[in-house]
Amino acid sequence: MIRFKLILAYDGTDFCGWQLQPADRTVQGELEKALSKILGEPTRVYGSGRTDAGVHAMGQAVHFDCADDRSAIPWQKALNALLPRDVRVVDCAQVPDDFHVQYSALSKTYEYVLWHNRNFCLPQHRRYVWDCGSVDFALMEQAAQKLIGEHDFASFQNVGTPIKSTVRTITDISRHPGRTEFESVWRFTANGFLKQMVRNLMGCLVECGRGRVTPDAVATILDAADRSQAPATAPAHGLSLIRVDYSL
Amino acid sequence: MIRFKLILAYDGTDFCGWQLQPADRTVQGELEKALSKILGEPTRVYGSGRTDAGVHAMGQAVHFDCADDRSAIPWQKALNALLPRDVRVVDCAQVPDDFHVQYSALSKTYEYVLWHNRNFCLPQHRRYVWDCGSVDFALMEQAAQKLIGEHDFASFQNVGTPIKSTVRTITDISRHPGRTEFESVWRFTANGFLKQMVRNLMGCLVECGRGRVTPDAVATILDAADRSQAPATAPAHGLSLIRVDYSL
Repeated sequence: MIRFKLILAYDGTDFCGWQLQPADRTVQGELEKALSKILGEPTRVYGSGRTDAGVHAMGQAVHFDCADDRSAIPWQKALNALLPRDVRVVDCAQVPDDFHVQYSALSKTYEYVLWHNRNFCLPQHRRYVWDCGSVDFALMEQAAQKLIGEHDFASFQNVGTPIKSTVRTITDISRHPGRTEFESVWRFTANGFLKQMVRNLMGCLVECGRGRVTPDAVATILDAADRSQAPATAPAHGLSLIRVDYSL
Repeated sequence: MIRFKLILAYDGTDFCGWQLQPADRTVQGELEKALSKILGEPTRVYGSGRTDAGVHAMGQAVHFDCADDRSAIPWQKALNALLPRDVRVVDCAQVPDDFHVQYSALSKTYEYVLWHNRNFCLPQHRRYVWDCGSVDFALMEQAAQKLIGEHDFASFQNVGTPIKSTVRTITDISRHPGRTEFESVWRFTANGFLKQMVRNLMGCLVECGRGRVTPDAVATILDAADRSQAPATAPAHGLSLIRVDYSL
C-alpha cells in the first residue's frame, strides 16, 4: 500500500462543499469518482477539513491509498483528464503511511476577500468576494489584534460534530491588497479552525469595520464562549482555503 | 428628450452576447427590460458594438434617450437594483443629443488574458482566460509589430454584416502582467475592430507563440486579405471590452 497526498484547487461556486453527500455535487464526490475510475475499484479520499458549500480552495490537501503495483500512475495528469474543470489537482506527492491530511496538519491558512466602499460589485469578481459596503480598516485591525493568540473560540463556532476542545491558536490575521482598490484580502492562519470559524471571525471584523461592534467588545465576545453573542457569519463565497502546512 | 451614456461591466459567461435576441439572454435584452420597467415604456439602448457570446466587459458604452421630465432619475442606482448581478452600471453621464456610442467612438481597447506554460488552469480563473499551452512571448511580440498601424484586416474578420471598409488602425498591442506568473494580459487598441477581429488577432499571435506561424508570415497573412489564410479564432471567454474612448 502506498499513500499519496494531492493538493487541490477548486471553484466552490457549483459545489455543495467538500464532503461527500449522496445526492449533491461535492468535491470529495467528484474526486472519488475519478479516482475510482482510474483504480477500477471504489476508493476513499480524505480531506484536511470540510470546506462549506460555496467556499473555494487554492490548496486543499487530500490523501488516498493505492496498491503498490498502481503507484506509477501519473496522478495529476490522469485525474485532471477525468475531473470537471472546476476542480484541479495542482500537485501530487508520495507520503509516509502514517501521514494523515487532517491529523498531521500543523496549521491552515485561509483568505477572505472583501469588496468595499464602492456602490457596485464588479460582476467578474462577484463569485469570489463579499460586497460588505463601507468599512474602516483601522477598526478591523484593532479588533483582529484581540483575536490573535490562544483563545477559546466557542463564540465563533457554528453547531456541528461535537469536539473535545474549542481552544485554538491564531498566529496571523492580516490585511493584504486585493485585485482592485475596492478589494482587500484578509489572511487567517491558525493551528486549526472550528466549524465556520473563519467566516464567523470575518463577520465579526466587518461589524467592527462598520462601527457596530467596538474592538474592545471583541474580547468580551470571546470571553462569553457563546455563539449567540457574536455577529453573523460572513458569506461562504468570499472564502478560500489557501494552504495546509505539514512538518514534512 | 435627454440622452444618457452608461458604462457597463458584465460577466459574459451566462450571456449570449450583447445584442438583443428573441429567445436568448443578452446584455442588451436585460438592460432594455430594466430600463423599460423604470420608464414604463419600451426603451431602446444602443451599444458601442456587439460583444460575442461569452465575451466580458469592464467598460461597454451604451446610450439611451428619455423624456425631459424623467431625467432626474438616479440611473445607476435604479438600474443596478433591477439588473441581474452579472451586469452592473458603473457610470452614467448626460451627453449631447448628437452623441452616439457607436459613431462617436474614437477608439476601443480590449484585453485578452492568456493562461500558459502550466499543466493545469486554476479553476477560479477559468472563465476569464484561454489556457493556450506553451508560448514564446518574444515571437508573439515580433508578430504584434507587424499588425500595428493602418492595415486592411480582412484576413482577421469573420463573416457578418457587410461593411464599407476593412481598413483599421491599431495603435497598440502590448503585453501586461496577469494575476499570476501563468497569465499575461494582451491589450489591443484601435480606431475600430471588425467582427471577431481581436479574437482572430489573438489566435494568430498564439500560433506565432507556439512556433507554428512565423512573425514574417503575419505580414503575408495581412496582405492576403483572406480569412482562410489566418489561424483559428481564439475562444470568447478570454476577452474583455475595457474602454471606449470619445472626444468628450
